[in-house]
Amino acid sequence: MTETQPSLYLEDLTLGQIFESGSVTVTSDAIKRFAAEFDPQPFHLDEEAAKTTLFGGLAASGWLTTAMTMRLMVDSFPLAGGLIGAGVDALRWVRPVRPGDRLKVRCEVLELRPSKSRPDRGMAKVRVVTLDQDGEAVQSFVSDMVLQRR
Amino acid sequence: MTETQPSLYLEDLTLGQIFESGSVTVTSDAIKRFAAEFDPQPFHLDEEAAKTTLFGGLAASGWLTTAMTMRLMVDSFPLAGGLIGAGVDALRWVRPVRPGDRLKVRCEVLELRPSKSRPDRGMAKVRVVTLDQDGEAVQSFVSDMVLQRR
Repeated sequence: MTETQPSLYLEDLTLGQIFESGSVTVTSDAIKRFAAEFDPQPFHLDEEAAKTTLFGGLAASGWLTTAMTMRLMVDSFPLAGGLIGAGVDALRWVRPVRPGDRLKVRCEVLELRPSKSRPDRGMAKVRVVTLDQDGEAVQSFVSDMVLQRR
Repeated sequence: MTETQPSLYLEDLTLGQIFESGSVTVTSDAIKRFAAEFDPQPFHLDEEAAKTTLFGGLAASGWLTTAMTMRLMVDSFPLAGGLIGAGVDALRWVRPVRPGDRLKVRCEVLELRPSKSRPDRGMAKVRVVTLDQDGEAVQSFVSDMVLQRR
């Protein structure tokens, strides 16, 4: 979120509104580096070793895809008070993310709900779909996000 | 997964079975490093800036907590063929994770289902709860995991 983007409050969002992020390319190095720290399994660590696994080749940890998705959202979806998720439902890794894939994120506002107890807050339900360079979904989830009211 | 741990197949798991991981301490450095790459927001990046936010102090990105949870699972839950998740439901960040928190993971087998189309595979539904040093849950989710059959 940069100073030049206006911050979005609950009142600025509408049902069905769609935000599209910028894009980022997944590198073999990023896949292996994340895996070494958080998900050290052969199919995330080494091209050769990955060939004999279910993935048939190097693939990103699903948790790297969620993390890269978060970064794209933070950079493109300027909610007032920041992007704060209370939880996520229906997280699906639809297809493997491979080195060279170029990812972007599409967020769709599904629900908006002012808080009953806190007049300065609300919640949004947002569908977050991560797409590859061919426009195919690689991941999707629904996020409950904390909103600020004006 | 080390060579000394036996790999677990669908037939080795039972409903209600519980696996507990080792533990890991969350450092301020790990929180900031992850945030700089994947979730660059004030409450994950800087103690001072975090004070005036909803979190009231530095807190780990929820996606760092999922990533650290995955690492604890990989190190302690030796499934044959590796830990491969198809999806996650009901992911909740129950309380903020702070510098100095010591996390461990408890996995409970909720469902076991042989594949109808693939005699060498199956699926498990596993509840994954991440606990802090006081035994309080900081995060929970239910994971659908791919299993190998003997």
